[in-house]
Amino acid sequence: MASYQAPLQDMEFLLFDVFAAHRRWQEWPSLAEVLDEDTGRAMLAEAGKLAASSIAPLNRSGDEEGVSWDNGVVRAPTGFKEAYKAFCEAGLSALTGNPNYGGLGMPKSLAVLVDEMMYAANSAFNLYPALSAGACLALDAHGSSELKQRFLPKMYAGDWSGTMCLTEPHAGSDLGLIRSKAVPAEGGSFRISGTKIFITGGDHDLTDNIIHLVLAKLPDAPSGSRGISLFLVPKYRVVADGSVAGENGVSCGSVEHKMGIKGSATCVINFDSAEGYLVGELNRGLQCMFTMMNCERLSIGIQGLGCGDASYQNAVQYARERLQGRDVQGADKAKAADPIIVHPDVRRMLLNMKALNEAGRAFAVYLGLHLDQAKYGASAEEQARADAKVALLTPVAKAFFTDMGLDCTVLGQQVFGGHGYIREWGQEQLVRDVRIAQIYEGTNGIQAMDLLQRKVFANNGEWMEAYLDEIREFATTVQEASLRELADDLRARSLQLQTLTETVLRSADESPLELGAAACDYLHVVGYVSYGYMWLKMMVSADDSSTKQKTGRYYFSRILPRIDSLIAAVESGSGAMMSLSEAEF
Amino acid sequence: MASYQAPLQDMEFLLFDVFAAHRRWQEWPSLAEVLDEDTGRAMLAEAGKLAASSIAPLNRSGDEEGVSWDNGVVRAPTGFKEAYKAFCEAGLSALTGNPNYGGLGMPKSLAVLVDEMMYAANSAFNLYPALSAGACLALDAHGSSELKQRFLPKMYAGDWSGTMCLTEPHAGSDLGLIRSKAVPAEGGSFRISGTKIFITGGDHDLTDNIIHLVLAKLPDAPSGSRGISLFLVPKYRVVADGSVAGENGVSCGSVEHKMGIKGSATCVINFDSAEGYLVGELNRGLQCMFTMMNCERLSIGIQGLGCGDASYQNAVQYARERLQGRDVQGADKAKAADPIIVHPDVRRMLLNMKALNEAGRAFAVYLGLHLDQAKYGASAEEQARADAKVALLTPVAKAFFTDMGLDCTVLGQQVFGGHGYIREWGQEQLVRDVRIAQIYEGTNGIQAMDLLQRKVFANNGEWMEAYLDEIREFATTVQEASLRELADDLRARSLQLQTLTETVLRSADESPLELGAAACDYLHVVGYVSYGYMWLKMMVSADDSSTKQKTGRYYFSRILPRIDSLIAAVESGSGAMMSLSEAEF
Repeated sequence: MASYQAPLQDMEFLLFDVFAAHRRWQEWPSLAEVLDEDTGRAMLAEAGKLAASSIAPLNRSGDEEGVSWDNGVVRAPTGFKEAYKAFCEAGLSALTGNPNYGGLGMPKSLAVLVDEMMYAANSAFNLYPALSAGACLALDAHGSSELKQRFLPKMYAGDWSGTMCLTEPHAGSDLGLIRSKAVPAEGGSFRISGTKIFITGGDHDLTDNIIHLVLAKLPDAPSGSRGISLFLVPKYRVVADGSVAGENGVSCGSVEHKMGIKGSATCVINFDSAEGYLVGELNRGLQCMFTMMNCERLSIGIQGLGCGDASYQNAVQYARERLQGRDVQGADKAKAADPIIVHPDVRRMLLNMKALNEAGRAFAVYLGLHLDQAKYGASAEEQARADAKVALLTPVAKAFFTDMGLDCTVLGQQVFGGHGYIREWGQEQLVRDVRIAQIYEGTNGIQAMDLLQRKVFANNGEWMEAYLDEIREFATTVQEASLRELADDLRARSLQLQTLTETVLRSADESPLELGAAACDYLHVVGYVSYGYMWLKMMVSADDSSTKQKTGRYYFSRILPRIDSLIAAVESGSGAMMSLSEAEF
Repeated sequence: MASYQAPLQDMEFLLFDVFAAHRRWQEWPSLAEVLDEDTGRAMLAEAGKLAASSIAPLNRSGDEEGVSWDNGVVRAPTGFKEAYKAFCEAGLSALTGNPNYGGLGMPKSLAVLVDEMMYAANSAFNLYPALSAGACLALDAHGSSELKQRFLPKMYAGDWSGTMCLTEPHAGSDLGLIRSKAVPAEGGSFRISGTKIFITGGDHDLTDNIIHLVLAKLPDAPSGSRGISLFLVPKYRVVADGSVAGENGVSCGSVEHKMGIKGSATCVINFDSAEGYLVGELNRGLQCMFTMMNCERLSIGIQGLGCGDASYQNAVQYARERLQGRDVQGADKAKAADPIIVHPDVRRMLLNMKALNEAGRAFAVYLGLHLDQAKYGASAEEQARADAKVALLTPVAKAFFTDMGLDCTVLGQQVFGGHGYIREWGQEQLVRDVRIAQIYEGTNGIQAMDLLQRKVFANNGEWMEAYLDEIREFATTVQEASLRELADDLRARSLQLQTLTETVLRSADESPLELGAAACDYLHVVGYVSYGYMWLKMMVSADDSSTKQKTGRYYFSRILPRIDSLIAAVESGSGAMMSLSEAEF
């Protein structure tokens, strides 16, 4: 029943009106060659068409059919293979890839929007290419040129896919505990043994080979996370000339039965003395893997956005068509009832979704542009500044997009009433599919600690201060009389956040518990203030009488005030939380 | 992997220490005969044992197997029939029933706790008896003594079950639109025709007969909800002597495929000139059905509570056993990692659940005692006062319990990390099972409008004022020095809510949109203030150094402040919400 249309108009508004991304693209030589505004529009339109016509139609059927695992052979749901082929033929598996190895070299500011479309159309499907893209990124950044030459062209072409093998049964959030072993072998290669779980796209029939990036430890490695190395381990061996040469001791031990993303193969992968190749330096594997993880964290955040928008699109359509109750402002006498979109509480649900989705989309483009700047920026100093911003805001994007994504899919399901709970309507699937995004790729609690401890506290609050300065500077420049009040509000909010940051950092000096006690609510405050920033940016760029002005005002009056309660919770500190003994729970 | 233990200690603390229910029971002659403190404890313990040993073990298997529908025959999952028999043999299907017809005549203050246990153990299972209990209540309140004599004894015994047939494909929240027809027939009976959807327990193999309570209209009935009558329509005809006499034109058209509660048969039921009997007066069917609906609304609210507690119990156990990361206050060097319950953010999740669940349980008992008072109270005036309180707070219980229930099951799932998303661990099922509780029995948006429009606005705010007076009066009596600050906080919160009520009622005089714009957030404010009231009551009754004091302080410092943001949202009015045209969504 659900159908999906890529929100091209809003995407183009963000890229070209709000952020003038095309002007940045033209400033950066390697991008200027391949991308201008028209090309950008055309690529978005093509991706949108593919998402709507080939990917979205497999969403419900993929959920019902799920992944099969027979006699050790894993199969994606019917149609996924053909859709994957179409995806790769459209160049999307090579979108941000390095042109030296067959990539298209497109910027993240464009890619985040394509990612959103694909997750909205079919989250389970998009996980296959999303993991491949991240594996390529890490390999491109840290692999030897021989390894890159041997693997990247096939991966960009979509002939081979990639995975990220971190988690083990006893080692999830705590990677220092991993036990997978790597033993040096002939020709500089290694023999990898161990069991990895929760491996997205760990095995399937979409591609001819699967390239695993695996964290493992050498026998004499230091204990904990400082002794972890990264290895490339193909499912089938690949000899130096690039040809495939048989089994490699990699097998799928089982496929998980999950709440959602049932079309995505979540596998137990066993490595039994499998031939692997070191990526990056020995014992520096976690740092190399973070290249992939940061890429995936943004991508998974965007899963939250995409599911939220798909849910919104369905809910609006349903709210226009479903006739129940009477419009208190004047009923349509020709009908026995009015469409439920006339009811304020239905509008509240729709507007919460709309205001959060559109701000999230803007924040994704904002972050994408900073990723581009970190890569292409004219000076090392500009690149470093952008890099710090990305490091600060990636955990916010991952956790806040997905927390808001759950809220939005739940709201979109609620608009449907009883039909929202019935499988055939598709709304409940979005709730199930998005729920994992708050968990995998580092739980949102881990993201919150990453933000507060590693990005804010470890930098003495300076990165956050720079970000808040930027927000205030922007608010100060807003000239439109109609927006002055909102600009002042945003300024005040950013000052609240600055004070809160100072409070938390002071308390952390006294007790190491305070960061953990504050982290989750603190991240949400950063998220809401960031969305306020995005809304003000959009309102400045939009026509005076446009829907953006109305939705933005809704955000400022109905959603942004949520930070007051969050700040009160953070300020109460860790006392109440830590007062119970373990036995008292 | 999940196991459930009824929280008997907390339940007894509420009944006997906080609310002294046993003293009320003794004041009411018809209860004093059958129930004292010891009997109450024994009944809770028995029900708890049944829930843990017979009902809970079928929760996961019922979800995996679901309801089958073959050749028009509907079957509940394996084991449900035997468990249902055990449930009825324990007297639970007759628990609150009228003793004149074989009921046990037990009070709601006890029954709400049994209901919580059963929903926690297995929500899909408990829906069968929960609907039967409500049908019995409506029949007892509005049926002729002949009808009651013919049907109630078999229903209390559990030989026959009951349903509530309201919804039609085009008539969900708006019951005025229903089209099912009732035509007068021989001997004062009626012929009922029409299609009802989303009928919980509409067909199954647990009982020998199914007694449908059906809303339908006579051919000449007034239009809208003033022309609706209530009919009792058995699946198999029952002649005057009580014996079953063949088919009655009632059939199951299909069984829905749902997100959760998969062991509960959600049916399309077709009535094809089925013989039915009027319950109550002609055209007053909706009022009669409200007896059942109010009973079910509280019951469904308690589903939210039960699922929240089940999720909490599992999460605490997992958090004690799962070793990840290091305790910042001092690691256990004998282990490679510490149990995750040491981490503040894990405690935040657990304490949010604990603080909300325990307050919700208290609120359920509080409401149960008012239901008892409305039935048994010494004077008509006392009964009416209790009745008004129940009418005011039933929508709060339904919506707030279930909204918090979703939050708690999501938190409990999050504690499990990746394992929370895997079906075999059971945590994701609780999220799926509880989600329907926000939708059925009147969506939570409908509950919010019921509260604000029909209970607050229609009574000019007086019912709410009386409730808030009670809260303030209680807060004023708190003598314990250690609790004075919290009592003052609660007093201040109740004044905030009073001011908010006045603001909303004033604005509603100006525009009929304001109630709808405020309703959902307003209900949440009422819920949080009510839970604050419950916490203060519990803290007054609990030992000074008990866990209750710590959890209560957590509630006041970390959760109650949420009302500030909600109040800001409500105060912003309907303007932003209504500013978009339909096309702008």
